[in-house]
Amino acid sequence: MADTNPTVVFTQPKTAVIEDREIPSPGPGQLLVRTRRSLISTGTELTIFAGDFAPGSAWAEYAVFPFVPGYSNVGEVIEVGTNVDRSWIGRRVANTGPHARFVVVPAGPAAQQVRPLHRPEVSDDEAAFFCLAEIVMNGLRRSRLAWGESVVVYGCGLLGQLAVRFARLLGARPVIAVDLAETRLQLLPTDAGVVPVNPREQNIADAVRDATRGRMADVVIELTGNPSVIPTEFESVRNQGRVLMLSSPSGPTTFDFHDLCNARSITIIGAHVGSHPDLGEIDLPWTRQRHSELFFDLIADGEIDLQPLITHRAPYSDAPTWYHQLLTDRSQLMGVVLEWPD
Amino acid sequence: MADTNPTVVFTQPKTAVIEDREIPSPGPGQLLVRTRRSLISTGTELTIFAGDFAPGSAWAEYAVFPFVPGYSNVGEVIEVGTNVDRSWIGRRVANTGPHARFVVVPAGPAAQQVRPLHRPEVSDDEAAFFCLAEIVMNGLRRSRLAWGESVVVYGCGLLGQLAVRFARLLGARPVIAVDLAETRLQLLPTDAGVVPVNPREQNIADAVRDATRGRMADVVIELTGNPSVIPTEFESVRNQGRVLMLSSPSGPTTFDFHDLCNARSITIIGAHVGSHPDLGEIDLPWTRQRHSELFFDLIADGEIDLQPLITHRAPYSDAPTWYHQLLTDRSQLMGVVLEWPD
Amino acid sequence: MADTNPTVVFTQPKTAVIEDREIPSPGPGQLLVRTRRSLISTGTELTIFAGDFAPGSAWAEYAVFPFVPGYSNVGEVIEVGTNVDRSWIGRRVANTGPHARFVVVPAGPAAQQVRPLHRPEVSDDEAAFFCLAEIVMNGLRRSRLAWGESVVVYGCGLLGQLAVRFARLLGARPVIAVDLAETRLQLLPTDAGVVPVNPREQNIADAVRDATRGRMADVVIELTGNPSVIPTEFESVRNQGRVLMLSSPSGPTTFDFHDLCNARSITIIGAHVGSHPDLGEIDLPWTRQRHSELFFDLIADGEIDLQPLITHRAPYSDAPTWYHQLLTDRSQLMGVVLEWPD
Amino acid sequence: MADTNPTVVFTQPKTAVIEDREIPSPGPGQLLVRTRRSLISTGTELTIFAGDFAPGSAWAEYAVFPFVPGYSNVGEVIEVGTNVDRSWIGRRVANTGPHARFVVVPAGPAAQQVRPLHRPEVSDDEAAFFCLAEIVMNGLRRSRLAWGESVVVYGCGLLGQLAVRFARLLGARPVIAVDLAETRLQLLPTDAGVVPVNPREQNIADAVRDATRGRMADVVIELTGNPSVIPTEFESVRNQGRVLMLSSPSGPTTFDFHDLCNARSITIIGAHVGSHPDLGEIDLPWTRQRHSELFFDLIADGEIDLQPLITHRAPYSDAPTWYHQLLTDRSQLMGVVLEWPD
Repeated sequence: MADTNPTVVFTQPKTAVIEDREIPSPGPGQLLVRTRRSLISTGTELTIFAGDFAPGSAWAEYAVFPFVPGYSNVGEVIEVGTNVDRSWIGRRVANTGPHARFVVVPAGPAAQQVRPLHRPEVSDDEAAFFCLAEIVMNGLRRSRLAWGESVVVYGCGLLGQLAVRFARLLGARPVIAVDLAETRLQLLPTDAGVVPVNPREQNIADAVRDATRGRMADVVIELTGNPSVIPTEFESVRNQGRVLMLSSPSGPTTFDFHDLCNARSITIIGAHVGSHPDLGEIDLPWTRQRHSELFFDLIADGEIDLQPLITHRAPYSDAPTWYHQLLTDRSQLMGVVLEWPD
Repeated sequence: MADTNPTVVFTQPKTAVIEDREIPSPGPGQLLVRTRRSLISTGTELTIFAGDFAPGSAWAEYAVFPFVPGYSNVGEVIEVGTNVDRSWIGRRVANTGPHARFVVVPAGPAAQQVRPLHRPEVSDDEAAFFCLAEIVMNGLRRSRLAWGESVVVYGCGLLGQLAVRFARLLGARPVIAVDLAETRLQLLPTDAGVVPVNPREQNIADAVRDATRGRMADVVIELTGNPSVIPTEFESVRNQGRVLMLSSPSGPTTFDFHDLCNARSITIIGAHVGSHPDLGEIDLPWTRQRHSELFFDLIADGEIDLQPLITHRAPYSDAPTWYHQLLTDRSQLMGVVLEWPD
Repeated sequence: MADTNPTVVFTQPKTAVIEDREIPSPGPGQLLVRTRRSLISTGTELTIFAGDFAPGSAWAEYAVFPFVPGYSNVGEVIEVGTNVDRSWIGRRVANTGPHARFVVVPAGPAAQQVRPLHRPEVSDDEAAFFCLAEIVMNGLRRSRLAWGESVVVYGCGLLGQLAVRFARLLGARPVIAVDLAETRLQLLPTDAGVVPVNPREQNIADAVRDATRGRMADVVIELTGNPSVIPTEFESVRNQGRVLMLSSPSGPTTFDFHDLCNARSITIIGAHVGSHPDLGEIDLPWTRQRHSELFFDLIADGEIDLQPLITHRAPYSDAPTWYHQLLTDRSQLMGVVLEWPD
Repeated sequence: MADTNPTVVFTQPKTAVIEDREIPSPGPGQLLVRTRRSLISTGTELTIFAGDFAPGSAWAEYAVFPFVPGYSNVGEVIEVGTNVDRSWIGRRVANTGPHARFVVVPAGPAAQQVRPLHRPEVSDDEAAFFCLAEIVMNGLRRSRLAWGESVVVYGCGLLGQLAVRFARLLGARPVIAVDLAETRLQLLPTDAGVVPVNPREQNIADAVRDATRGRMADVVIELTGNPSVIPTEFESVRNQGRVLMLSSPSGPTTFDFHDLCNARSITIIGAHVGSHPDLGEIDLPWTRQRHSELFFDLIADGEIDLQPLITHRAPYSDAPTWYHQLLTDRSQLMGVVLEWPD
């Protein structure tokens, strides 16, 4: 089995298969990694799998079929290319390789693709969240969310769940978490600083008003990915507050820049994972690598508990089934971890 | 004549008249001002005059007919109400009163409506720009535009003209100014740091690329007020740059938050004049009053020249004509100053 | 007993007595409060009690004998002056009144002296820490300490203990806490993010290097109050890092601004409690009142545990004994709460 | 003459000579530059030349005799080492090489030592100020000096003269410039925003109060280099203001951190040229290279006039004379440019 390379492939919209591809060779400066676990990033991967984005959009340029999905991979370095220190061999790494048994990724200080796992306390399952964690950590930093500020997280999928937890860790309160799916709300941490809101049962703006003593939220975080919901989210933010556009909405929004942005002096902050600094500077240190280092420390020291978020774990061969399940009812799936046997 | 109070009134959309209203009495804490000059704020006032905003929008709530326009008034205090220091009488003040011979405005430290004119070098005509100056100054501060950063100003009406001048005064360069009307581009200051661009003659993004050595603009300032133009303006801003929403666009925009905001990590900053601090704090001093103080200093010391922007000066009785002219061809009018004889 | 007003007075340096003073009457806009608890602020009050500050220094101007100490008072409003809403009567308030059974303090929105206790879960003992909490909260905000940054707190007295706890609550890690007194280090929270260091046993800079993976601290917080120790604290901060001057050192330091400040581009941030915004603005909301509101929420919701810091509780009549004890060995006393019986 | 390499050398404190050293060969990644002009950086170089710094200080570590001074060099690339694009040959560059006819400096994107002169309008004399300009530009950025803020510059040597000019270019006003030497004050720009103050004739704090309408300065910039003057400079800064430590004071200061820093919540900002970002990030772009690019643009476009600052120009062989002159009366010398003939 070690001489095959099973790989998840979207052959066309709404079709996922396992193909046996060739085992890649590490080129100069590259590592060859044997995957142990990979996490399905339900938001991004579902958007591509569904395949209904406008021609000419950034989504359409990125997602060309056949498409090999996945960027949340944990494995062991088993070979290196030229110009790479051989001490890499045998190390466990989190990396941005796809859902495949063997992946090659570049090493080196400027490489954004590999993160050594410096804390043995972090399990493979947990480590596979590193990329989602980086997205959210970077977003929260760009939002300038400060100690004691209130925040509303719209959408409690994987990113939303992480956003709630990280916002609490940096001292935001209250953190109001909104989702239509009760199953998702039940995965939220139960501490006095977290306020779950199901809009089927409560008016969101009223709930925010109550939880913030009438002030409304300092920061709103968009994580539904639903373009048409965005304008309604502005009801929850205070005047001169901030809206963090952390999702990748899959289509246009009809948006009144006067009423929702200018008249109330709202700041809308787009935060793609690519806005991390590349190499970092002493005054701007929060690179992707550095965020993952912090993330692994938080897991290892028990400050964040990801176990409730790993709702499904299965052999990689089940991947096609999961993607179809996502298409049908995304609310039932949260963290889906694929296992890659030796 | 001193016992009449001619007042500009929009009786209904697209209809302006001069009505002789009653001379108001200053109530407790108020000043009675005899107007000398008032400036037509072409953007806001034209939007109201035209009257074509969506029902339920913020515009529709604000602009109820009959409507008394104007908020850029300069005159002399001739009487005060109770609880007001009588030393106000005789002082020249810029104030937010409307286009009328007599206006009453509140005084006091918390009042945002009156600014003493502490520099005699500032003419009545120039002082009448105070409110527009405050809008732009506040916007530039909220945009965090920094020394040496590049900026593109879309729309060279009154606010755009001020934005170009202030951006240069705080050391931005280049300042690229975009307008379809050659008459407006010709009013721009001629210094090496200002680059006028007429999209009828040049591709805007190309012009920005040339002027910024390929970096694209750090900041884009929206001042066209045209909702449908907004998405195209994002072509000029660099990744992770800022778009200052300084105009009050009169309707909705079809806007892709993924492609234009999240994917490129753009920050969109709404900046209404109301986001000035109310009273100010030592760490947040830039109130409306303080901005006007700086504005008057800049005029008095010759750092900014408003004369080219005063394109028309006429007796107040011509006001209805000017509003109709604005409706027909706004590009020919810039600063229209109404004179109110003693 | 209700018609006497026992009051702690420093009659001269190193001499504290209880005097029976007249019960004050609330003037216009004032509240009369019957004290239940008052906390001895060991740092400030000991500096005054010891009385050895240089003539002409700010300390000498502030501390004129006889001096009535105390600014951490909790009690019940029992009467109000004119122009005060009578609904104040009966309310429990934290206030800046001194160590006396009856104190008068101004009310009103601009008044910095009174904080309503909006959470019944907060005990009188705990509430009495409000003023110390405000000092530290404001200091941390001014330091711009951010999520994931490392910090060294020099001095683990009351303010240092609060600084460690609050720094953890806003996500700093590691928080390295330095003190010579083992008794103080033992009061620190035991979580993986807190690293106690006793310089009798470890080299501080080495301990910081280990705990920060060689990076050294992003922020150093001075809370020893010892002028001669300050230069050594700069060994722990990284280049381009920040030193928060949160204590009130009682005398001059010999300080090389080239070696310690300019050459390493260190920022030194003085943060007196008086640098809170006065009334606050929507963009600068963290007034003293607002910080206390957050503090009371943190206590009520169990995010911060002050019980270990209340090391001594005693009738007010013991106050003179405590001040002398402080002079002899401050390290044995932490939170000293005076009880004022009905 | 082309086969000798005259070089300025400090053989010991207070002794400068011209030595004929060997012409260096460019190593891998290096450029060989034939010098046209070099500027004496009067502050740094005089401190080293005088040689009276404390043993063990950072100054003592840096300045080991014999010492080859100079870091403000303009010349032409005449040869390159291996791994360097030969198109460098013939280019005019500003570089950090010393006072010598031939210097070698590294090239490449990460190299901080070479700046191409992209604007032919900039003369060799002017270009030689690039390094001093970078020091001041970086300092002003770190000080967060904002449009409309007031500033006091203590010390009007070369760095002070640049600080005054740059502060004006970024919109600070008033800029109050303090020096004991009338000759230096006379070199200041004469615009309404610059207020020269000679403490022999005026009380500085009074002059600052007058010029700032009683507010005192938002920012104070230390550029005297005199350790004992520093505490007095805090009289000019407002509460919660900033003091930029931009000089390299040559010895310790007796400094009361309570009275001057904590009690008034002053922030002291050390800003060494080394605190520029190394490579820059899109969110932190102001590297040394980028600052020089801006500096050359400002000269080329006539926004800054350095001619008055070039007070002396002489053949390199006069250098020993100038250093002795600096020791005797620094106030008579400002920009001293050495000429290096072909």
